[in-house]
Amino acid sequence: MSNQSVNPRTGEKFGPVFAATTPQAMDSLIAQSVSAYKVWSHVKAAERGKILLALAQAIDDRLQDLVDIADLETGLGKVRLTGEVGRTTFQIRSFSNALERGEFVTPSLDEAVDAAVPQGHPKFLRTTRGIGPVAIFGASNFPFAFSTLGGDTASALAAGCSVVIKAHPAHPQTAQLTFDIAKKALQEAGAPEGLISLGHGFEFGKLVITDPRISAGAFTGSRAGGRALFDLAQSREYPIPFYGELGSVNPVVAVESALTDPAAFAGAYLDSLLMGNGQFCTNPSVLFVPAGSIVVNEISKQIAQRDLAPFLSEATKNLHDSNRAKVIASTKAEIYEGKAPSGAGFFSAPMVLVVKASDVTREISGITEECFGPTGVVVTYGHHGEVVELLSKMEGALASSLFASASDSSAPTLIEALASMSGRVAFNAWPTGVAVTAGQHHGGPYPASTSSLHTSVGTQAINRFLRPVTFQGLPDEIYSALQSTTTKEK
Amino acid sequence: MSNQSVNPRTGEKFGPVFAATTPQAMDSLIAQSVSAYKVWSHVKAAERGKILLALAQAIDDRLQDLVDIADLETGLGKVRLTGEVGRTTFQIRSFSNALERGEFVTPSLDEAVDAAVPQGHPKFLRTTRGIGPVAIFGASNFPFAFSTLGGDTASALAAGCSVVIKAHPAHPQTAQLTFDIAKKALQEAGAPEGLISLGHGFEFGKLVITDPRISAGAFTGSRAGGRALFDLAQSREYPIPFYGELGSVNPVVAVESALTDPAAFAGAYLDSLLMGNGQFCTNPSVLFVPAGSIVVNEISKQIAQRDLAPFLSEATKNLHDSNRAKVIASTKAEIYEGKAPSGAGFFSAPMVLVVKASDVTREISGITEECFGPTGVVVTYGHHGEVVELLSKMEGALASSLFASASDSSAPTLIEALASMSGRVAFNAWPTGVAVTAGQHHGGPYPASTSSLHTSVGTQAINRFLRPVTFQGLPDEIYSALQSTTTKEK
Repeated sequence: MSNQSVNPRTGEKFGPVFAATTPQAMDSLIAQSVSAYKVWSHVKAAERGKILLALAQAIDDRLQDLVDIADLETGLGKVRLTGEVGRTTFQIRSFSNALERGEFVTPSLDEAVDAAVPQGHPKFLRTTRGIGPVAIFGASNFPFAFSTLGGDTASALAAGCSVVIKAHPAHPQTAQLTFDIAKKALQEAGAPEGLISLGHGFEFGKLVITDPRISAGAFTGSRAGGRALFDLAQSREYPIPFYGELGSVNPVVAVESALTDPAAFAGAYLDSLLMGNGQFCTNPSVLFVPAGSIVVNEISKQIAQRDLAPFLSEATKNLHDSNRAKVIASTKAEIYEGKAPSGAGFFSAPMVLVVKASDVTREISGITEECFGPTGVVVTYGHHGEVVELLSKMEGALASSLFASASDSSAPTLIEALASMSGRVAFNAWPTGVAVTAGQHHGGPYPASTSSLHTSVGTQAINRFLRPVTFQGLPDEIYSALQSTTTKEK
Repeated sequence: MSNQSVNPRTGEKFGPVFAATTPQAMDSLIAQSVSAYKVWSHVKAAERGKILLALAQAIDDRLQDLVDIADLETGLGKVRLTGEVGRTTFQIRSFSNALERGEFVTPSLDEAVDAAVPQGHPKFLRTTRGIGPVAIFGASNFPFAFSTLGGDTASALAAGCSVVIKAHPAHPQTAQLTFDIAKKALQEAGAPEGLISLGHGFEFGKLVITDPRISAGAFTGSRAGGRALFDLAQSREYPIPFYGELGSVNPVVAVESALTDPAAFAGAYLDSLLMGNGQFCTNPSVLFVPAGSIVVNEISKQIAQRDLAPFLSEATKNLHDSNRAKVIASTKAEIYEGKAPSGAGFFSAPMVLVVKASDVTREISGITEECFGPTGVVVTYGHHGEVVELLSKMEGALASSLFASASDSSAPTLIEALASMSGRVAFNAWPTGVAVTAGQHHGGPYPASTSSLHTSVGTQAINRFLRPVTFQGLPDEIYSALQSTTTKEK
């Protein structure tokens, strides 16, 4: 099996053919990764931080080349992709800064207590170390921020792990170019050989996640693919943590008090819904609005004016179209469509399905099937109780939103209903747009995440790859010697 | 299926027969647990802490009754069991104090940054909440500290979770009495009905861990049983975190500089090895000593004087005996035995197997098979490189030790070799004895733990059951209203 880039705007193949990485090649990549981990995990955190800075700079220096090839492969547009590269290097620098400040990696000292059992205890020094070589699966929808050098790679490298990356087949050239730039930058900055490696092909991914030398996995993508990898990771003789983001149907609730400007609200909704052709894990998949609200009319009018954007790949379009057909078949929806596609390329008309809350209460699949693309479901409700009930029946979500005036008496109840099924609740803001910051939480109950306790965005993401080791009663001089001995190996 | 207590000192059954909890009864326990969770997870942390204090006091008040029945069921002895009750209530109070201080549960505020994208971001309030109802499996070897009200239950309750406990069949009366005391105390302290529940039977455990209303599981026990439950938890439609401690072969390394008093060292080794009849997850399973050390002679002499102690159950004895037979068959060991059992009850002679490092390098099973009981393997080594190599081949361990003088030049290398395969490295201390404190880490690479990132002992254990939820741009007044609204539900 081999793969080649496809221009989603035209459907045409272009550029080099990437042969699937062979099992032999994979074996040697992982062997190198293990060696690199042994060195890297003992490099002082501040030094790792400096090397990450050099990495970020090398990517920024090649911004235009990266954006150009990614635009051809993904059709996401140069404006968005330029922003995404910036986000990617900002992310790497955030981890670098956190390491510089000693966050996450400073040992915590629990001094000896000389008292009666069980209160008495010896001195404990609680440290953390990189868990080991990590398998990272590039995502289709973020060719930079969740791919080769995305948040998973940045946080794993910051933690002291080496990484083995599987390129996403929808943008192999972008993956390869990013990797080549990164490899050179890491080498020049003094990182160990083999700290990052890249492979191509479906079989490669399966072999990597089941390799006993791999200590963790991170994935952003489809529910079917992610679950298959999760199952492989958990059924190993030695199971490993697998941080998967498998899709999310994100609810947005608007109450009357927020809908003072229906036209503007409808426009903002469509902006969020159609951002990146709707291929966002934080897409506002289901919008709850009061029955009879003029917002629905506004949406139905405005969607007709929206431009078409290509899907990331034919596979993405086909999955979207088939899921949308299922939703249409299972609901009694009023359907509003945008412009219809014409000619070549991977396009589908944007669509909003308007359903009644009482109808989806009977047949929930209309609001549980993820249509990863330019499709939104608008649920009209009679009273807030209907919304709370439907939210309690939905699957776990990454993000959710409430639009309400700050003094609206229904706000606490609705916020709580959203918090009980999602990892982030935005107030008077759309769920798309995930800031890279310490307070971020990008992870929710399954299937949003395979581990709802962890975030994949923001500096806390490093905790996914840090294994604690506590030293009991260890003299300071040995701990210091331990540090310098192991750093010398480098 | 039903079960009845067995006195391990005599092999005789006694006391009431506990019927297996039926699927119908389980269904209603879990329904109650869900209701209790909804209330409890919103009770203010300090209030939860107060209720935990009342719980600890109620247990302390019944110390003697608890110790008496546990001693009959487990044969662990009243001195040890008295200490274990103290440890258990200390553990509950530790979580209470942590909640009182606001640890783990105080939201962290990430103020808005009004700057250029991607650095700019809205205000984030990162909170945590109990993940949901938790299934907890009582352990055979700690009838208090890792059972009904052990560390798993204490940390889950502290986190705001309800718990559904499966009693261990080796001490059903202890489990039931502890539960009855706890239920009454919780009720009197104002906790919601159904916050804790208890069931009996193997099938009950399987049904609970696969019930879609259960959000996490915690287990301490055998590798086979723990892995089976882990597999059930991971293969659910909605997988859940499963924190299993599945057994650990803990290495202890002694270098020449530490062996200035061989007789005392041998005595301390046997104390640790035979504590609780060797039925400790932190048992010093494999001791590395320099070839030709007089310590081996001391061990061989002293083991003959050691008293017999009963196994926790016939099943534990049988598993131990069969694993020990495997180790004997697979190694060319010199064997030193303690007193032989006579008469009824579940006893086996304590035993130390002495093998050469070069022999176990060829056939590793001698140091990878856990003999959960009074059996130790002593490996004699020619040089430290042999020890490092063998450690790199061993499975993950909970704990490890190095005995060396603080100035021994080999210490850093050996400490690092131990740290790379275990969760806690003790210096000049035996691995048994796990302090309940903030710096503790009781968790290691699989099979020591199914999640090496988490500890099951010490206050950090609460993190296993806390799910983050970030509120973005939420006005303070709504957050406050959210708190008080939801607490009022109680």
